[in-house]
Amino acid sequence: MIILGSTGSIGVNTLNIAREFELEVETLVAGNNYKLLNKQIKEFKPKNVVVSNKNIAQKIDFKNVKYGESAILDAIEESKSDLVINAIVGEAGLKPTLKTNECGKKLALANKESLVIAGKFVDTSKLTPIDSEHFGLWYLLNNRPIKRLNITASGGALRDYPIKKLHTATLDEVLNHPNWSMGMKITIDSATMVNKLFEVIEAKWLFGIDNIDAVIETSSTIHSFIDFVDGSTTAHIAYPDMRLPIAFAIMQEVKKEIVTHIDFNKLSQLEFREIDTQRYPIWQIKDEFIKNPDLGVVINTTNEIAINKFINKEINFGDISKMILKNVEKYNNIKIDSIEEIFEIQQQIKNDFK
Amino acid sequence: MIILGSTGSIGVNTLNIAREFELEVETLVAGNNYKLLNKQIKEFKPKNVVVSNKNIAQKIDFKNVKYGESAILDAIEESKSDLVINAIVGEAGLKPTLKTNECGKKLALANKESLVIAGKFVDTSKLTPIDSEHFGLWYLLNNRPIKRLNITASGGALRDYPIKKLHTATLDEVLNHPNWSMGMKITIDSATMVNKLFEVIEAKWLFGIDNIDAVIETSSTIHSFIDFVDGSTTAHIAYPDMRLPIAFAIMQEVKKEIVTHIDFNKLSQLEFREIDTQRYPIWQIKDEFIKNPDLGVVINTTNEIAINKFINKEINFGDISKMILKNVEKYNNIKIDSIEEIFEIQQQIKNDFK
Repeated sequence: MIILGSTGSIGVNTLNIAREFELEVETLVAGNNYKLLNKQIKEFKPKNVVVSNKNIAQKIDFKNVKYGESAILDAIEESKSDLVINAIVGEAGLKPTLKTNECGKKLALANKESLVIAGKFVDTSKLTPIDSEHFGLWYLLNNRPIKRLNITASGGALRDYPIKKLHTATLDEVLNHPNWSMGMKITIDSATMVNKLFEVIEAKWLFGIDNIDAVIETSSTIHSFIDFVDGSTTAHIAYPDMRLPIAFAIMQEVKKEIVTHIDFNKLSQLEFREIDTQRYPIWQIKDEFIKNPDLGVVINTTNEIAINKFINKEINFGDISKMILKNVEKYNNIKIDSIEEIFEIQQQIKNDFK
Repeated sequence: MIILGSTGSIGVNTLNIAREFELEVETLVAGNNYKLLNKQIKEFKPKNVVVSNKNIAQKIDFKNVKYGESAILDAIEESKSDLVINAIVGEAGLKPTLKTNECGKKLALANKESLVIAGKFVDTSKLTPIDSEHFGLWYLLNNRPIKRLNITASGGALRDYPIKKLHTATLDEVLNHPNWSMGMKITIDSATMVNKLFEVIEAKWLFGIDNIDAVIETSSTIHSFIDFVDGSTTAHIAYPDMRLPIAFAIMQEVKKEIVTHIDFNKLSQLEFREIDTQRYPIWQIKDEFIKNPDLGVVINTTNEIAINKFINKEINFGDISKMILKNVEKYNNIKIDSIEEIFEIQQQIKNDFK
């Protein structure tokens, strides 16, 4: 397989699964963590390695290491493997997703931004999501008619934070996630609830259903549930461990134990909370976003800019949502007809903030 | 269809479904509630009616009303309907179950005692359970390998009762069930946890799996869950309403809303408790019972005798479990090879208590 983002949390877990099931790793693509990448190269002996830039490339113990965006796209095209794991963070994942489509390869997608930004141009027929909520939904599908899809949220690091002080929460506080150990960007997205907003849109594209809701389940034990027309609801439950969705995304079916089972005797209780738009102001555009998914490029681009500003202490935590909501108002009537327009809007929004 | 036990809680709900889906009711069989039966006859215009005895028969507004056990068996044989709903209470349900098998008709079974007493002689290939837990398990089945089946218990009316006083709990206290409105026998079985023990055995016969456990979920919102080999657990969740399993038992698939969906935003929390053998002493024989299901006739017969004694104030609540445990010890090595032996053991135990 081809692993894009091998040194991130999803990449590392993908290699754990590759090790366990003795799967061949043809291509490794990573960003800046050259130390870990060098270890991965030693263990998995890939045929191709690509990193972010020349400076990093010089530190890699691999004789024909490539670097840069177009080298990633070339590696997808030139590798023999039929499966691409796209675990690149943020909008940088979109072009690799489109290239994977173009090559007719199977795509195991952790880069949800690809679908958020350009869902209507992505071929979902050969796509399996690496996201515990969507894996859960997929696992629960049967042939019965569905009324509504539901995904759960942890509520992020600030779910119990005093509302009055939320606006000025620090990066350290935002990164202190209660249930999942993940990369920085998704942990911030979890605190703002942008991550769940993205997952709602991801579910829309993956399952072709518009009736989608979310609720906070504080332990991240229930990942998703489906309301069937008859009145039954089924839930997918597992300890929060990405190896489970990754193993299924790679192998489709798994007949051995990947994670231990939830022990309800020890669980004691599950707590549910409504997603409160005072704590998570971004949630107020959920229905509007489902109706007009073309807003995705606006929301994602603004979010990535805002997150960088927040990390660089140029803005407060509360400003991330404010900036997004303001741009959603500005681009309210957006209509996207091509991939090119997406890249234009991205550029336009970036220029706005320069 | 043929409805055995039409005036009980399951029978009434079955007729609710028959009304809603305009299903034909050919035969009504009821016990002593002649007033309700007369109303049902007026509304559903059955072709055959059978009651428990001659005295009741005289109060029924139906010209050719029959009565007695053999009339029930004849009605099953002589009715044209291909589907029998067996909602008779206790061991009296066994012969109708066997007769339904014999006639090759489909069986929607609420009488779990049939399986507890004689599971190995019952053909489960044309059987659908009317039990929310087993319906839930059936609903959750897919083709993935299963590690364990789990059903939930409410814990019954005495789940929060002081343990020291449990032995002398009164019938009124026992009948005050927190979640379900059901008949008297099953409500008592719920307080002793005998009902859940029976459902474990029912699951064994229905699904052919021996790894079965139960846990208390206090709201009866989650009815059952399946641990799949990979580490995923799926759960069946619905408001406690028997119309849902009944509708599926009759029609196999249902494409309209039978009950409203659980609203997790309003659920707030779910509480789980281990089944404590101090509060529920019967639970200590769960694994032994799964290993030797021939004990079923001993456990069920003793339970029915004990329940009658408890209702008649001849014994205390705590004695129900004690009597059963004592007889399980006595008949420890029981081996049943025929239906006739079952009836012999039943008689033997009844004689013991005379």
